[in-house]
Order: sequence, then structure tokens, then C-alpha cells
Amino acid sequence: MSGSSFGTLFRITTWGESHGPGIGVVIDGCPAGLPLSEQDIQAFLDRRRPGQSKYTTKRNESDSVEILSGVFEGRTTGTPISLLVRNQDQRSRDYGTIASLFRPGHADYTFDRKYGFRDYRGGGRSSGRETIGRVAAGAVASRLLKELGITILAYAKAIGPFTVEEADYHYAEIKENSLYMPNNTVAEQAGNYISSLMEAKDSCGGIIECIADGLPAGLGDPVFDKLDALLAQAVMSIGAVKGVEIGDGFRVSASAGSENNDSFFSEPNCTGGTAAGTDEGRTIFKKTNHAGGILGGMSDGSRLILRAAVKPTPSIAKTQQTVDIHAENTEITIHGRHDPVIVPRAVVVVESMIAVTLADLLLKNMTSRLDLVKKVYDRP
Amino acid sequence: MSGSSFGTLFRITTWGESHGPGIGVVIDGCPAGLPLSEQDIQAFLDRRRPGQSKYTTKRNESDSVEILSGVFEGRTTGTPISLLVRNQDQRSRDYGTIASLFRPGHADYTFDRKYGFRDYRGGGRSSGRETIGRVAAGAVASRLLKELGITILAYAKAIGPFTVEEADYHYAEIKENSLYMPNNTVAEQAGNYISSLMEAKDSCGGIIECIADGLPAGLGDPVFDKLDALLAQAVMSIGAVKGVEIGDGFRVSASAGSENNDSFFSEPNCTGGTAAGTDEGRTIFKKTNHAGGILGGMSDGSRLILRAAVKPTPSIAKTQQTVDIHAENTEITIHGRHDPVIVPRAVVVVESMIAVTLADLLLKNMTSRLDLVKKVYDRP
Amino acid sequence: MSGSSFGTLFRITTWGESHGPGIGVVIDGCPAGLPLSEQDIQAFLDRRRPGQSKYTTKRNESDSVEILSGVFEGRTTGTPISLLVRNQDQRSRDYGTIASLFRPGHADYTFDRKYGFRDYRGGGRSSGRETIGRVAAGAVASRLLKELGITILAYAKAIGPFTVEEADYHYAEIKENSLYMPNNTVAEQAGNYISSLMEAKDSCGGIIECIADGLPAGLGDPVFDKLDALLAQAVMSIGAVKGVEIGDGFRVSASAGSENNDSFFSEPNCTGGTAAGTDEGRTIFKKTNHAGGILGGMSDGSRLILRAAVKPTPSIAKTQQTVDIHAENTEITIHGRHDPVIVPRAVVVVESMIAVTLADLLLKNMTSRLDLVKKVYDRP
Amino acid sequence: MSGSSFGTLFRITTWGESHGPGIGVVIDGCPAGLPLSEQDIQAFLDRRRPGQSKYTTKRNESDSVEILSGVFEGRTTGTPISLLVRNQDQRSRDYGTIASLFRPGHADYTFDRKYGFRDYRGGGRSSGRETIGRVAAGAVASRLLKELGITILAYAKAIGPFTVEEADYHYAEIKENSLYMPNNTVAEQAGNYISSLMEAKDSCGGIIECIADGLPAGLGDPVFDKLDALLAQAVMSIGAVKGVEIGDGFRVSASAGSENNDSFFSEPNCTGGTAAGTDEGRTIFKKTNHAGGILGGMSDGSRLILRAAVKPTPSIAKTQQTVDIHAENTEITIHGRHDPVIVPRAVVVVESMIAVTLADLLLKNMTSRLDLVKKVYDRP
Repeated sequence: MSGSSFGTLFRITTWGESHGPGIGVVIDGCPAGLPLSEQDIQAFLDRRRPGQSKYTTKRNESDSVEILSGVFEGRTTGTPISLLVRNQDQRSRDYGTIASLFRPGHADYTFDRKYGFRDYRGGGRSSGRETIGRVAAGAVASRLLKELGITILAYAKAIGPFTVEEADYHYAEIKENSLYMPNNTVAEQAGNYISSLMEAKDSCGGIIECIADGLPAGLGDPVFDKLDALLAQAVMSIGAVKGVEIGDGFRVSASAGSENNDSFFSEPNCTGGTAAGTDEGRTIFKKTNHAGGILGGMSDGSRLILRAAVKPTPSIAKTQQTVDIHAENTEITIHGRHDPVIVPRAVVVVESMIAVTLADLLLKNMTSRLDLVKKVYDRP
Repeated sequence: MSGSSFGTLFRITTWGESHGPGIGVVIDGCPAGLPLSEQDIQAFLDRRRPGQSKYTTKRNESDSVEILSGVFEGRTTGTPISLLVRNQDQRSRDYGTIASLFRPGHADYTFDRKYGFRDYRGGGRSSGRETIGRVAAGAVASRLLKELGITILAYAKAIGPFTVEEADYHYAEIKENSLYMPNNTVAEQAGNYISSLMEAKDSCGGIIECIADGLPAGLGDPVFDKLDALLAQAVMSIGAVKGVEIGDGFRVSASAGSENNDSFFSEPNCTGGTAAGTDEGRTIFKKTNHAGGILGGMSDGSRLILRAAVKPTPSIAKTQQTVDIHAENTEITIHGRHDPVIVPRAVVVVESMIAVTLADLLLKNMTSRLDLVKKVYDRP
Repeated sequence: MSGSSFGTLFRITTWGESHGPGIGVVIDGCPAGLPLSEQDIQAFLDRRRPGQSKYTTKRNESDSVEILSGVFEGRTTGTPISLLVRNQDQRSRDYGTIASLFRPGHADYTFDRKYGFRDYRGGGRSSGRETIGRVAAGAVASRLLKELGITILAYAKAIGPFTVEEADYHYAEIKENSLYMPNNTVAEQAGNYISSLMEAKDSCGGIIECIADGLPAGLGDPVFDKLDALLAQAVMSIGAVKGVEIGDGFRVSASAGSENNDSFFSEPNCTGGTAAGTDEGRTIFKKTNHAGGILGGMSDGSRLILRAAVKPTPSIAKTQQTVDIHAENTEITIHGRHDPVIVPRAVVVVESMIAVTLADLLLKNMTSRLDLVKKVYDRP
Repeated sequence: MSGSSFGTLFRITTWGESHGPGIGVVIDGCPAGLPLSEQDIQAFLDRRRPGQSKYTTKRNESDSVEILSGVFEGRTTGTPISLLVRNQDQRSRDYGTIASLFRPGHADYTFDRKYGFRDYRGGGRSSGRETIGRVAAGAVASRLLKELGITILAYAKAIGPFTVEEADYHYAEIKENSLYMPNNTVAEQAGNYISSLMEAKDSCGGIIECIADGLPAGLGDPVFDKLDALLAQAVMSIGAVKGVEIGDGFRVSASAGSENNDSFFSEPNCTGGTAAGTDEGRTIFKKTNHAGGILGGMSDGSRLILRAAVKPTPSIAKTQQTVDIHAENTEITIHGRHDPVIVPRAVVVVESMIAVTLADLLLKNMTSRLDLVKKVYDRP
């Protein structure tokens, strides 16, 4: 294992460089009998595909997925699902000049130090194209979650300084603007801001928020494999993410316990707040959700809320100071086709990593109690 | 595996409940030949021990560690190191009243839903005492890091709304105040704030920051096991942590690429900025460190910077609304001995988890290149 | 991980040296709600305890187990179960003379080469006492298997050249002789043989056979984690085991396909052969079981059959040629209390490792199909 | 994880069915800088390719490998190496009749029971073609072992009842006969035997032996991840293998300790026996090697010896009794292109699995001692 696998029971292994023959993922441990087609996966890949709007790279690749194994007559067989996306628009010439330089904000320097040399063509394994494997796996995980009534929704909460406050959320608008923001007005302002950055040969970052509904209570394990801990690994492992928070996140530091604790209530029928579960004919719920749906590292049945901070695209056309591979001072001006902000295309990547994490924990959680073991094996 | 293990080569497995016979950890994979004594471990445990100041629980336990295996004649043998801390001050009677209630902000509800019932004595496995195993392991990891010239320092950057800005850091003052803040003046203000909360039967949270120096470049793997991703899991897995960020963290979302990128420079002798590595007689360094020492998921040789948001202690004496295990609405008033803020005692826990993560990645990184493999096996 | 853990979902981690403070195991992932007491575990440990007969070492230890965590009010809680057995009869003086020599057939030489030095007191981590952790875990696994109607039986099929043929098996006699052989007559002959070896200051080996009944079909995964592959690791990992075979084992090499294949039959009610499963009111079964209950790496519902070859105890009182830690030629005469044959005490160790392997695969197998996932989560 | 991955640091994940688009493997953790080409891998695949002799299936596939990632300018980059072999000669029609039957000796029944249905085309994931991924990975592992001076040699020790005794080994003849036996005369006899079985529409098994030289002492970990334990899993996980033994294997059961122990000797220069290591200018060696190169689960520096029992090909043209998927009794006559004995083609599979296991343990062993850690990181 060199860090290219994630998950225990629903386990994904990704591979591939931006300028090699292709990118792919092997999903081992998906339960047998799940309906799955290439269309299910392609729909996810299309959401991260370049060339969707004026704010994304013009690199033009169809990123068509091929299912190489694990699906027979439209259903998963329980064996590894191997997915392949061939690289098409490689244009190695675009990247020739950076072979001997360390680009600021990129992995060139650290890759070289770790491995002794690097595939200098377009970032190699550190390219954003690495996320194709994540998204393809996320599509399969989401297909599984759908069978269990779980839905995930991700969107751009902020682009640069333009933030949509929760009171202004219109989820239906997420798909109406090319930035995937839950408010078309803010999206328009953010779009103008991006345009001005593009003229200035600069870039910006943002915040992606993701919510999940329909989770059973109890997902996650109480110590190192807490639901929030594994989500944090999953999302922080996406290139450019520099922070992850759950529920109120960093705001909790200035809150009081009496504010931050979400009180429990119960009613015969849930009439308000977030349903957290039912018991003996009554619905237990919380009127607030500062915890973001996680207590003690386990899902509490209410809405899961996670935010990720995404840094500005490091590839900018503005001239920057750097050193070359012989440690000589020099300057670098990065040409080529780069997104001025990666947040819109990273939305589906965050959603995918969360889907993969939840799928794995749903399977692991099945073995938590003797009565469930007996239920599966039909024992009294 | 049910989530009680962490790490691949330097792998720790913790166990134990707050009111059972004891708490412990097994460390498997610590290299042979490391000098190690019970004193090395006890020094770390004493930093998280209750009863250190008026701001911590009065629960009085010596938390003495016993080395049960893996050390012979003062050195590690390469076999598993088993560490045991017996519980002493259990006072089960303190907790009897909460057996049938779900405490807001605690894991009572989720634990019950996951496992069907729970050890209701003081939180059981979800108690803060669970961190004893983490800290004991962290002491061993730190002993290993010390041999490699790596140092870690953690402290309370903020307690409630009282934050120490970087310009006001005085690292020497961290050990001078019982809140482990890098500024005695702010610590005093924060202390007064805590006292007022205690009178109000309430609690607060804060922010813990941790820095590490002396890391070689290249720690961490490029995809799922990025250094920042594993640190995020490690730190988010600590109870009460609701957010983790690296370097500029959430601030990157409003930054521009030209600001956020840390330029590389080189000089024959390093005269400024943070040294990131040397090559061909020249030192490569960065004058800024927005990245917090990590590029592309791998350490870049500069200072590692991580922050964690800690929520207010959920156990408060103020009366709260909740439900009982029969889903009936009721109220709860939590008596007993609880920290009004857990940040000071959690400082060493964060430091320990980071030490354990780094120790593991240092070992994994040894196999990254063929020339290192040959070096170890004395092959030409 | 340095090889002290086994299993994925039902995961055990053992620790401890023969002459340190104690030996133990942490079991992570045992489902919550399993009735478990120290008596359940002690019963297993008593079967491997020294001093049971004239053929076992006179080292006298009660090997009393203490449950340190994971059990509350007589049931497992789902959290790690930590078990501790303190060492009592350490007598370090017995082993002083071997500190500077490499005992033939022992791990002294390899341990020294791997770790640079070794705990020379009685084998340290390579002592037979290491199996205490395995047996304690095996007791817990067996308790789980019992709930699912699975039974395991192990016995000594051969001691030295004295072998019990299958036609002569009397399972009831296994507990009637101190060698755990399924035939008292052969056991008596073997006993006399052992006595003669003891006089000759020599030792012998044997073959342990283990059968398991009641397994559902489908345990094990089709490629690397085949049921037989994991059993092979589990059993070969027991010190002194030099071979493992399933069903007809090595005899298959000289068999023909038409002989070796076990034909399938079905009847409305099973009237003969080994029941392999039922379908549509009919029982599918095999009249032969050359396969030993495993097809394609998965249990087929018929009896599991495994055999392990155990080498002669390497500690013998006869003088042997060896070298010391300075590579000088010398002789060694091993005094102390050693079993002339470890087979009888290893019977419960083999049974335990098989129980642990099966418990883990039973849990993993729960997630193999979408319909089982839906069943657990009550989805239509 | 559903059992399609093997290894910890040098970790392989295989995928693919016999009649799907292709078969492949992802190797994660191969050190950077290893020279590697498609020719290196193709040479291994050609050794298991069908159609090599009259004793192998006439299914005609070139099994050409494509490197999809992880290699740049002829050297491994440290990132995952993805290898793909497209299936060509699928002829689904050959297998149509077996869709509704359970073939004796095959995984049809168990696969159906585990997953609820199966890819009935030629065994799907349980086909012998699954080993393509193992062999491709074995080629890469062998390339790494070669850099460290380690050589592996596998051959057919027995085909049916025709066994080559050690005294009659002529290693040079292994490549001279199509059965890969170390004695051409015995190979001719075995060939005639196979021809007679083919006429009788039957099949046979055999024994594969594998030796490895040049191993450093200390590979393997002392408890569950013993070298022999992991080799046992690796080799037993190959379809059709029913037994694994090390060194004297099952013969140890009838041996005496004084015979079975391999004495140590030392000489200023090694003049006989098997060199086990050197120390202070003297060579430590063993004149015998009953242990097969492993003591206490760790390599002792002498020759590694392993044998695997391979069952007769279950696909035979002779009519057999079986049941269909509705549990009705019926007969089956398997047509198609099947090897009368799989031993010759399995030789390279055994060799590959041993190479993969050794590569992983070589990497893991690098972190066993503090002095090695310091050596890699250039610390005093």
C-alpha cells in the first residue's frame, strides 16, 4: 500500500497520471446485485469534465468510462469493478518548459524529493485528473447509497470572498449556475470576480459544503475511525483542500456548551427540527444541529454537514519567483489551460469522496451487533 | 478492525473504558533499539492528567503507566509494546442517574443506536479517558521522532473568544500558564472567562495549534494517504474536535493564487524564510508558508502547521432538555467533576496524535525509492 | 503493523513475552451483545496450560485471564476486548546460559539478525507462551460461532509415527487421553513412544487435524482471501507448524480428476453424504468430501477439514552443535522444562486460530450481497 | 476490501473475469526508480500462456500486457503501476450449457451461494485466467528482487504419481521439457501418463516446488505475519492448491528433534552447507536445511524451500453426476478446451506469488531497527 487505496470493505484503489495512457479505479467489495451501468458512472464524470463553462480549463476530453470487470448482465457480481478512462488530449508540449522548474504551490518539489525524480508532464499523479478515479468510484458508491435511501448534495458555498449565507440557500439554483452555488445572484457576482482574476492572470479558491440525508444512526466507529475522522481524511486527501469542518466547525471554539449542545426532543410524530431516529412509536429529534449530524464520531440520524476550504489554483499565468531542479533562482510563467478556480469542478469530487466513505461505513456497521449477525444468517 | 487501530507500520491499538479496570494501548511496529522507559511515557500522561489546575476536573487519578511488553533492558525489542493504566477513581455512583438518559452533545444516543445498549458509566469508551492510550502511544512516537531530530509543539491558540495572534506568540510562556497558551496575558483573560462560565454552570471550547519542525521532505503519499489527510483523520478522531486546517486553512478560500502560492528561493546559505531543503550546496526555502509545510500531500521540509477546533465540554451543570431511553421528554442536570474547557488537557492529545502519524509516515517513506532499499540492504 | 494483528473485522492483536510481566490480546470488532465471561476464556486457556500430564512441561502457571475492557454486565459492548494473563513462574535463571548462544531449531538466530538483539529469556516473543493470546481470542471467537451453530473440533491425528486412520476415529476418546488423540489405543502407543524419547533426551512432532461443522456456504473471498488461504496463514503462523493441507491435501497430487471431484446430489430430505445446502425444498449434498469443505476458496457447507504438520520440539536435552553470538563454534545442552512433544497443547491453538479466522470471515461475508445489506437496514 | 488485494507495502490488487473485457492488476508501493518495461512482464505472462504444448488448453490468446501507469521513461515512478491484459478468445458459446449447472470441483456452487448469482461464462472470477494479474505482479516483484540479488526458481516436482526425487534434480532440464520438471526422463514418463488421461477424458494433479536463494536473514514478522504464514496464504490462494509445506513439511511429524534441528556451524570462509549469514569475519551456516530456510517465521539466510499440492483439473470430459441451479439431479459432460493438468502453467504462478510476498516483506523489514531508520534519514 502506498496510499492509493481508501476504505476497508468498500475499498477503492486509484491509479493513473495526467499524461499517461489513462486513469482508473478498482472498487473491491461492492455488494453483488447492485444495478450498475456505464451511464451511472458517466453522469458523475461529466460533472467534473473540463470545458463546461468559461471558468474551467479548455482542455477538451470526453473522459468516457469503460467498465472492465465486476458487472454482469447489468448488475454487480461482488467481484472487483475495474473502471478505465483513457486520456485523450495530452499535448505534452504544453508542459515541456516546466520539466526543470518547481512550480510554487504544486507538488513538483515534494514529489521530486520523495521519489528522486518525477513525471513532469502536467503534474503526473498529482494532477487534478487523478480525481477521475475518485469520481468514478463515487458514482458507484452513490448508486449503493440510493438503494438505502441516502442522498448527498454538494455545492459551492463560497467562491473567493463571495459567500452564500444559509438563510439565502436555494438548493434548486445549484444546477442553474455554472459555479454550482445555491444562489444565482451570488453566483453571478462570483462569476464577475473570477473574470477579473482571469484578466489579472490570477486565481481564487472557495468553500465547498456537502450535506447528506437519510443516514441511519450509528455509522462510524467510536475511536480512530469516527465518521468525522474518516470524512476528514477523505476530503482533505483531495488536492487543494486545506481545511475540513463538521457542523458549526471552527465556530464552536467561541461558543458556550449551553449553546452548542443540541437538545433532544421526542414527539409521537415528528413535527419540527431534524429527525434523529424513532423509538417505541416516538420520533427523537434535535431542533438544532450544531453537531452536523455526528455525535461521538457516529451519525446521529440528522443531516450530515461538512465544509471544505479549497485553495486558489496554484497554476497562474502571472510571473512567479521559483527555483529550478539545480536549486538556481529563476522565474516561472505558467501557460496552458488552467481553471481560474477549481471549486466548481471539485464539488462532485467532494460529494464522491463522502459517498465512498459512507458506503464503506454502512457495510462495516452491519456487523456491529450480534442480533444483526443472526438476522443475516437466519439464526434465532 | 472496529476502528480502534491507527497507522500502518507504526500501528497503535487502544482499548478501555472510563469505569472499567483500565485503559491501554498496544504499539506494534516500533523499530527495535529505541531507548524507552516508563518515565518517558509518564511525562506525557502527566500533561493530560486531571487535577492540574482549577480549570480541570477534580477527578483524582495518578494515571500511572506500566510497560507490559516490548521493552528489554531499556530498549524496544521490535515486538509489540503493551501499555496499561489502571483506573482508580471510578465512583460509579456519580453516573448512576444518567444511565437512562441521553446527554445532549454526548455519544450516549449514537452509542445506544449502534450497539443496542451501552456502558453508561461515565461515557464508557467515549469518555475523555480514552485519550490515555493515544497519549501513551504519542510519547513513544515522540521518543522515536526525537532520534530523527523532529520536534513537535502544541498549544492553545484560543480559549472561547480569546485568541492569541501569531504576532503575540511567546512560545516560552506556554508552560507558564495552566491553559498552555503562548501568551500569559491572554491566558489570564481566558482564565477569568472560564471562571465566569463555571459560575454560570456552562463551558467553552477553543483552538489548538500544533507545529512540527525538522521534518524531511517527502512524508505522506500523493493520493489518499496524504500527510494532511492522515493528520486530519488523526486529529478529527479526537473527541470534541469539529474542524482541522493546515497552514492558512479556511482563510485560503478568500485568497488569490498569487498570494497563496509560497515562492521558492535558494541561497548558498539560508539567510531567511523557512528552509525547505538543500540541493547542490544551496538551500531551497520559502519566505512564506501559507501551505503549512505540505505540498501535494507531502511534507516540503518547512514548518508543519495544523489547527483544530475544539467544541465546548458537553457536560454542563445547567439544566438541559433531553429524552430518556424510552423516548420520553425530560430534563437533565449533569453533576460530577467535569472540565469547564477541555482544551488545555487536549493539547497533549493533539500533539500525540500528530507524533503517531508522523512516526508512521517516516517508516512508510523509507521504502519510497530503490536507492533507499539498496542502502538498507547494502547492495551496490 | 508489525505482524501482531490478524483478521479484518474480527481483528486480534497479541502482545507479550514469556518472561515479561504478562501476555495478552486485544480483540477489536466483536459484535456487541455476545454473552461472555472470564470462565468462557479460562476454559480454553486451561486446555493449553502446562503441567496437564507427564508429557508436558512442568512449568507451573495458572494462566488466569482478566477481562480489562469491552464487556459490561456480562455482554460484549462492541468495543475492544482486552485480555491479560500475568506471567508467574518466570525463573529467569533457567535461561541465563542460552543468552549468548543460538539454539538450533529456534528463532534465536533470526530474531537477532532482524532486530539487532533479542530478549534472550526463554524465547521472548517467540516462546510458545505467545499462543496464550491466540487461545484467549479463540475462546471469544468460538463463543460467537456457537451462537451461529458452528462447532469446531481439533485433535492429534498423529504423534511421531503413530497415526490414527480415519476408519479408527472415536471422537469421544479425544478427551479421554492426555494426547487428545481420537483413539485411546493409538494414544497409549504414542505415549510409550514419547516416554522413550524423553529418556533419550529427544522430542517428536505430529499432525493436528481440525474439523468444523455448521458453516454456511460462501465464507471466504474468491482470490487472495480464500477461506483456505486465510486458514493456511492462520495455522502456519503457529510456531512449529511446517505444513497445512485441506481435505485430501497432498494426496490430491496423485489423484485423478474423476476421483477427486466431489459430485453433487440432491434429495427432498438429506439421507446421506454431507449436506452442502438446501434449495427449493431439496438438500444439495456431496457423498464424498475430498475438497475438505472448500470450493474455489469458499466454504461449500460441508465439513471443513484441515491438517497441520507440527515439528518436534526444538528444545532437547541432547547435546547439539551450534555457534554463539560471536560466531564461534560451540555445543549446547538445553536444560529446563520443555514438552517432549507440543502437539497435545497445540491442539487448542489450532482450533483457536481456525475459530478466529471463521469469525472474521462470517462478519465479512455479511456484506456480500445487496439483499443482505437491505435486510440489515430494513429497506424494501 | 473483498479479498482482491495482497501485501502491505508492495500491495497488489487484481481484477477481471475470464470472459469480460480484460484482466489486470494494480501494484501500489513499488519503490521509485526500478527499471521496468512491458517486455519484463510479458516474459512472465508467456510462461503461463495457453497453447504452449500438447498438454495445455488450445485456447489461443496472446495475453499482451499494457502498462497504463506508474512507469515514466523506463523507470517506476513510485505511483501505482496499472497493468492490463485484454481478453481475446472469449467464445462465450462454449460455456452456454453450464450456465444452469454446478460443475463438480468448481466454484460454481459456492459462488452462487455467496453472491446470489454468478457470471457463468467460463468461471468468471474463479477462472484460471485470474492468475494473469498475479503473474504480471510477480514479474514486477521479481524485477525488484533481482536488484537485491534474490533469485527464485519453481518447477514441477511431481505430475500425478511421477515424482522427481531430490537426488535426481537437474535444474537445467526444467526449461527443456514442457512440464517444467527438473528431470527430462521423469517428465517423459509423466507426459505419457497425461496422454493416457486425455484419452480417458480425465485429468491429474501434481506438486510444485519453489526455492529462493539470496534472501537476507530476518524477513517475516514473529507472530501472524511469519514468512511461512504469508507464503502459505499466498500459495494456498492459488486455485487448485490444497496443501503447502515448508522444508521437510509433513515429514517432520515422524521426525525426532535431534534429527530435525539444523545445527549451526561457523567457519572463517564458508566451505560447505548452506550459508546463513556472516558475523565478525566468520560465516554462520547450517549443514542441513530441514527448516526450509525459515526459523521462528523469519528467513535464516539459507535456501527457502516450499512445496504446493495441486489438485487435478476439475473440468473433465468424462460424464459426472451433479445438480442444476434448481437443485435437480442431472449429469454434466464438460466440453471445451481444458488443460489435462494445470501444474506446468501454475509453476510461474507459484513463483510469482512467492516473489510478491518476498518483495513486500523486504520492504516491511527495512523498518525493523532504529539504526536502519537513521541510516535512511542520514542521522548519526
